[in-house]
Amino acid sequence: MAVYTDVSDEELADFLAGYDIGGLLACKGIAEGVENSNFLLHTQGGYFILTLYEKRVAEGDLPFFLGLLDHLAARGVNCPQPVHMKNGAALGTLAGRPAAIVTFLDGMSVKRADANHCAMVGEALARMHLAARDFPLKRANALSLNGWPPLFATAEARAEEVLPGLAVAIASELSHLQGAWPQDLPQGVIHADLFPDNVFFLSGGLSGLIDFYFACNDFLAYDLAICLNAWCFEHDASFNITKGMAMMAGYQRVRRLEPAEAKALPVLARGAALRFLLTRLVDWLNVPAGALVKPKDPAEYVKKLRFHQHAQSARDYGLLA
Amino acid sequence: MAVYTDVSDEELADFLAGYDIGGLLACKGIAEGVENSNFLLHTQGGYFILTLYEKRVAEGDLPFFLGLLDHLAARGVNCPQPVHMKNGAALGTLAGRPAAIVTFLDGMSVKRADANHCAMVGEALARMHLAARDFPLKRANALSLNGWPPLFATAEARAEEVLPGLAVAIASELSHLQGAWPQDLPQGVIHADLFPDNVFFLSGGLSGLIDFYFACNDFLAYDLAICLNAWCFEHDASFNITKGMAMMAGYQRVRRLEPAEAKALPVLARGAALRFLLTRLVDWLNVPAGALVKPKDPAEYVKKLRFHQHAQSARDYGLLA
Repeated sequence: MAVYTDVSDEELADFLAGYDIGGLLACKGIAEGVENSNFLLHTQGGYFILTLYEKRVAEGDLPFFLGLLDHLAARGVNCPQPVHMKNGAALGTLAGRPAAIVTFLDGMSVKRADANHCAMVGEALARMHLAARDFPLKRANALSLNGWPPLFATAEARAEEVLPGLAVAIASELSHLQGAWPQDLPQGVIHADLFPDNVFFLSGGLSGLIDFYFACNDFLAYDLAICLNAWCFEHDASFNITKGMAMMAGYQRVRRLEPAEAKALPVLARGAALRFLLTRLVDWLNVPAGALVKPKDPAEYVKKLRFHQHAQSARDYGLLA
Repeated sequence: MAVYTDVSDEELADFLAGYDIGGLLACKGIAEGVENSNFLLHTQGGYFILTLYEKRVAEGDLPFFLGLLDHLAARGVNCPQPVHMKNGAALGTLAGRPAAIVTFLDGMSVKRADANHCAMVGEALARMHLAARDFPLKRANALSLNGWPPLFATAEARAEEVLPGLAVAIASELSHLQGAWPQDLPQGVIHADLFPDNVFFLSGGLSGLIDFYFACNDFLAYDLAICLNAWCFEHDASFNITKGMAMMAGYQRVRRLEPAEAKALPVLARGAALRFLLTRLVDWLNVPAGALVKPKDPAEYVKKLRFHQHAQSARDYGLLA
């Protein structure tokens, strides 16, 4: 939940004068997203989401993120669509921060995903991958292989506070991944954070994907590995192979994995688990006093990582021959 | 800002089946209100606010609060209007908590109120007082004269942590008010918390009053004294007599103060300042670890109280003869 920046009614009215969506009727801070301040905006033109980008999002990345939403929406992917100003820009400034307005997307995230949800997520992920193929902008993945050691360095000394043996376990996993990480798999724009919070469902169908603020260029199959981590484990950190099969089949209905991608799946899943383990560890150790956001438990990803370390092949994730 | 309770999509869909507002399209936690969990609800029937009542609101008081909103809305006061279920009830249960749906009220609260806003607030307050005259339910004001000593008792030992001399100053003020508090002024239903957060404006006019969860039966002029405290001081705690005059005139355009009410205004203003000083003091001293809500500074009301202690008559608040 997050509203970090207070916006005055006068500032907001001035900001809206740059758009063609009518006068301001209401604006309420919404408890969604942990990186930015989000508001529900009601204008004479309808309902929208107003986002103020806080410091964790680099301003230079915003054209990539907003351009990607434009690109995907134009190709039929259900995602928030940036509303452009009268001058054509999708990005403005409000309360001293970069700010954008996007369309309001109906739907609800699910608390308890079942195999059917996983199938729809796999399918939507593949559609997103295909739709983004001709997106011209690039953004490197700062949270991939080369980004993990410096991230770990900031937390290594205190990792034992979270779990005994954690520092050694992470160091050893990092060393393994540095040798085993694939070099040459199909690449493209990936969502990189397609957790249940970021997928909306409506009337039994998937109604949209949100929160593209980690999107970047990387291996497409790595995105699938992130989703396997995010959707297919139970609360006790056991892997639900039925959900895995559903997600893999959903993905492959739209885009077939190449043999090299299938082969790399266990190592990609290890990397994905380590990536979320590391960022959660850093967040856990750096909760500011009076924080509005309770950090997520890194231990969940220690258990998931352990599962991946024992996986033999993509079959263990539900890939059928 | 507040969302204390997580609601699953399944629970919510079940809850909505009791209403006649169509299927669920979206639901987002909103960062508004400090007592309850509030959600923006989009259904096929439109946009609404869903409130889950947390433990600080006594369940037995909810029929008073919701009945009052029905009563006021029927008499033309712009306030959230409870949506009744198919069975006629305005109050249901969701996620183990009492829950209600009210209409979505357009408008924005102002960050910097001017005299014109104060005039509109005075007028709306008086209209609310008149509209509630025939409301049949009663609710005692737990935060009036008799409620202050027990509240102070919970904070007295630690009051010095907030401001040196505060414990003695409050004890002395309490003693003064116990002797000086009026016995016989016009009574009725008061809002009792009509701060800038709880008043919406739209296109230069006042569009509605919200958050009636402190409403109770008490002296009508005490409600005006609360508003003078809440709206007519500057950030440096100086009283802005222009705003006071505007508010008093606005109120009197709709309902004239009786001579006894005007005479009692300084002591009522002292009581109102002490009431908010005490609740802020208690909240300040009892912030739970990891609290989502930053408490408001009690010192602001120490300064306001000092102003009231030197006020001679209602003229000092802007009442014209």
